[in-house]
Amino acid sequence: MIDLNSDLGEGYGAWKMGDDAAMLGIVSSANVACGFHAGDPLTILATLRGAAQNGVVVGAHVSYPDRVGFGRRPMDVTPEELTADVIYQIGALQGLAAAAGTRVRYVKPHGALYNTIAQDARQAGAVIRAILAVDPSLILMGLAGAPVLEQARAAGLATVAEAFADRAYRPDGQLLSRREPGAVLHDPNLVAARMVRLAQEGVVEAVDGSTLRLAAGSICVHGDSPDAVAMARAIRVALTRQGVTIASFAGGA
Amino acid sequence: MIDLNSDLGEGYGAWKMGDDAAMLGIVSSANVACGFHAGDPLTILATLRGAAQNGVVVGAHVSYPDRVGFGRRPMDVTPEELTADVIYQIGALQGLAAAAGTRVRYVKPHGALYNTIAQDARQAGAVIRAILAVDPSLILMGLAGAPVLEQARAAGLATVAEAFADRAYRPDGQLLSRREPGAVLHDPNLVAARMVRLAQEGVVEAVDGSTLRLAAGSICVHGDSPDAVAMARAIRVALTRQGVTIASFAGGA
Amino acid sequence: MIDLNSDLGEGYGAWKMGDDAAMLGIVSSANVACGFHAGDPLTILATLRGAAQNGVVVGAHVSYPDRVGFGRRPMDVTPEELTADVIYQIGALQGLAAAAGTRVRYVKPHGALYNTIAQDARQAGAVIRAILAVDPSLILMGLAGAPVLEQARAAGLATVAEAFADRAYRPDGQLLSRREPGAVLHDPNLVAARMVRLAQEGVVEAVDGSTLRLAAGSICVHGDSPDAVAMARAIRVALTRQGVTIASFAGGA
Amino acid sequence: MIDLNSDLGEGYGAWKMGDDAAMLGIVSSANVACGFHAGDPLTILATLRGAAQNGVVVGAHVSYPDRVGFGRRPMDVTPEELTADVIYQIGALQGLAAAAGTRVRYVKPHGALYNTIAQDARQAGAVIRAILAVDPSLILMGLAGAPVLEQARAAGLATVAEAFADRAYRPDGQLLSRREPGAVLHDPNLVAARMVRLAQEGVVEAVDGSTLRLAAGSICVHGDSPDAVAMARAIRVALTRQGVTIASFAGGA
Repeated sequence: MIDLNSDLGEGYGAWKMGDDAAMLGIVSSANVACGFHAGDPLTILATLRGAAQNGVVVGAHVSYPDRVGFGRRPMDVTPEELTADVIYQIGALQGLAAAAGTRVRYVKPHGALYNTIAQDARQAGAVIRAILAVDPSLILMGLAGAPVLEQARAAGLATVAEAFADRAYRPDGQLLSRREPGAVLHDPNLVAARMVRLAQEGVVEAVDGSTLRLAAGSICVHGDSPDAVAMARAIRVALTRQGVTIASFAGGA
Repeated sequence: MIDLNSDLGEGYGAWKMGDDAAMLGIVSSANVACGFHAGDPLTILATLRGAAQNGVVVGAHVSYPDRVGFGRRPMDVTPEELTADVIYQIGALQGLAAAAGTRVRYVKPHGALYNTIAQDARQAGAVIRAILAVDPSLILMGLAGAPVLEQARAAGLATVAEAFADRAYRPDGQLLSRREPGAVLHDPNLVAARMVRLAQEGVVEAVDGSTLRLAAGSICVHGDSPDAVAMARAIRVALTRQGVTIASFAGGA
Repeated sequence: MIDLNSDLGEGYGAWKMGDDAAMLGIVSSANVACGFHAGDPLTILATLRGAAQNGVVVGAHVSYPDRVGFGRRPMDVTPEELTADVIYQIGALQGLAAAAGTRVRYVKPHGALYNTIAQDARQAGAVIRAILAVDPSLILMGLAGAPVLEQARAAGLATVAEAFADRAYRPDGQLLSRREPGAVLHDPNLVAARMVRLAQEGVVEAVDGSTLRLAAGSICVHGDSPDAVAMARAIRVALTRQGVTIASFAGGA
Repeated sequence: MIDLNSDLGEGYGAWKMGDDAAMLGIVSSANVACGFHAGDPLTILATLRGAAQNGVVVGAHVSYPDRVGFGRRPMDVTPEELTADVIYQIGALQGLAAAAGTRVRYVKPHGALYNTIAQDARQAGAVIRAILAVDPSLILMGLAGAPVLEQARAAGLATVAEAFADRAYRPDGQLLSRREPGAVLHDPNLVAARMVRLAQEGVVEAVDGSTLRLAAGSICVHGDSPDAVAMARAIRVALTRQGVTIASFAGGA
């Protein structure tokens, strides 16, 4: 059994992004934008209603306050600012989730915040405190192998580690930088086979051919292009055919 | 017994507005900005902590999305947009309130939204549906005598009517427009005496000298200048001296 | 000879909108977003560079400050606010245009602002004063037949009237409301034929079959979908085949 | 002869900051906010009109796009984004300046951007390219002794170095960090005497008592509190009494 997650609700007003309707038929968990990098209230509400209808579990995809940069630019915010920003976003999503007949079960930081807290204990602590303050039963999703997960568990949070379906891994467990050739995988069959092996054996082949042990409870798939949706669907089909159940780490929605 | 409410948490980042600390020692209810007209998460959180420490009940001061206009400019939003915007703001404040050890008990629309829904049943309905969707136990605060209150009660919401301490009233119960001379009252003693009479007899003298019956459960006082804080304090002192208890319509915080 | 104009530069950060590259090969004038309803500086700059390379004349597509509503929602701003907002947007676009090797030649208000000033002399006056203050040689583009054009000329501005290629007209010269059936025309051949007649005879057939005289120096075409681009191209091809020259009302870029 | 500069136009909508009217009677140069860290168009326009009336020279106080953080938080933007953002801000201010009867003569990056480009050649280059692209006659103001000034001159820009009136200097010419005790000076007489010496001898006493040579053409004074205004006035009075002329490095406004 493994979880499939994807970033949804990332439109903004008149601007669309990704095919939420298609992805809600593929994934078991939806990382829903909370308005700071993407997602206006009406867009978010529609995505949450779709998640509720499809039995997809909802997570808060919290971000730095940088809409024009889509939350992808590192920002040197203070821990106090970050804690308050994360609480605000989780709360907003909780409100909209209640209105959509579902609820928020986990938190996945987005973009630059995700990458920063993977290694930076100061900003990680700010996010962890935010979750503890607003609802300590929320699960923190983070990069498999990153120190933030251990830091969160030490603080009393449940965590789930994720792997990236279409990314190459270094032998040390880190993602190969996007600047390196081969960092992003494009062959749906290859990617699906890798994820089947990950789900069944807990390993993935690193770029140097070595076998990397990766304890991941969730697989991140993308849905921001027709090709991405097709790859996500291929992964789901391959896993299901091999007897792997796709289900949220958090139980039902 | 009557409630005193004021608009708080209206700073934004480096910009300050009003004296929240002083007002939290005077009022029984705090209309806390939710980020759409004012209030960043860190400022809001500080205000909520102060409210919790002072036993002041918290309401969500929801607004149109217009920070540069401070929510004071009428906007022709669709009911669907408005409902989602209001849910988002209530949810965000609920999250921050939980972190501050308190909770949101009522909703008071701000500025242009307040004025619009007082009369416009379509936008009023959108706000009412938002409250019902996120938490039907939240109380709607509105202008004493305005149709929105009856509309909200018909939809199943509890309501509280408010009077404005420093505003002149027309004989028909509407506020005298700010464009008219004498619309805003500046004498703390006069204002305090009017509010004592309102609390004790349920009436206020209109601009033409006639006696206006006003069923108000809350009095709005301002705190955006030293003079405003002084007037708010004078009202509190006068009410207390005359045996009127200052307490939230919602019970304890 | 007639001008073809289209709304360009309407992406925002990671969000794309329309096919600017295709449209820059079709139109003679580009209404470029200025950041208030759409367009971040980097997106705008890329569009301006494309306009410069294609010899397309640039106009400032100024808007109310409402990004999440894409400038489509009427806002009751003061004339002073509106004048300052319009100057700011024109100036910002002038700066980017200079960097792109071109310059701003006209101003076309966008969305709700466009519709409002067509009839509302107070907001129209605020826009006119903004143009006069920043550069009185800028031409104001407005709805053919709308009072704003006469008001602008009386104030000393040059104006250009525009017709909408894909919209049905009422016999009185106003656009048929989008809420009415048949308000938007979808047949590229029909639309192209109408625009040829407009360019050659200065008339268009109204919804009741009557012939409407329309003094338009520019035709607005859309580019926000592949179908829209195809229709724009069909109009250009039809006009050119009939010997109508497509060229900006402002002369060269 | 030396220039006095101050940050002005830093209100935003209903929020005020500093006493622009007072400062315009003291300084010879105004660093005017451009909307990214502070300043809405109406506020900026009022400040520019005041500058024009007082003969105060105007500079563009450009910033990262971070209003809630007041531009004080380092952001890892790309050079392309930064160049476009700076051009946009300069252009917007040029437009408003034209409307106010003045013009922009120099550029002073604000807050975190100021500090970053003082040392970071990549972001510095992006700012320099922006200025060259929009108007190469604009002067870049930067920290006396920082590499950015040499980089700008090498690229063909004129520059002006500034000293900070109320800050302590390390012997190596860098500002003592605000985290260190004594980093900010509060005695108006002491500060005024230091600035007189700087203007007359080109030196300032460093924290270790050594004499630091500082080639500064402008002195930055603050106006964000009554004490700050008083100190700025004291500096002006002391300089004038000692025969130092207060005048812009750019000549007349």
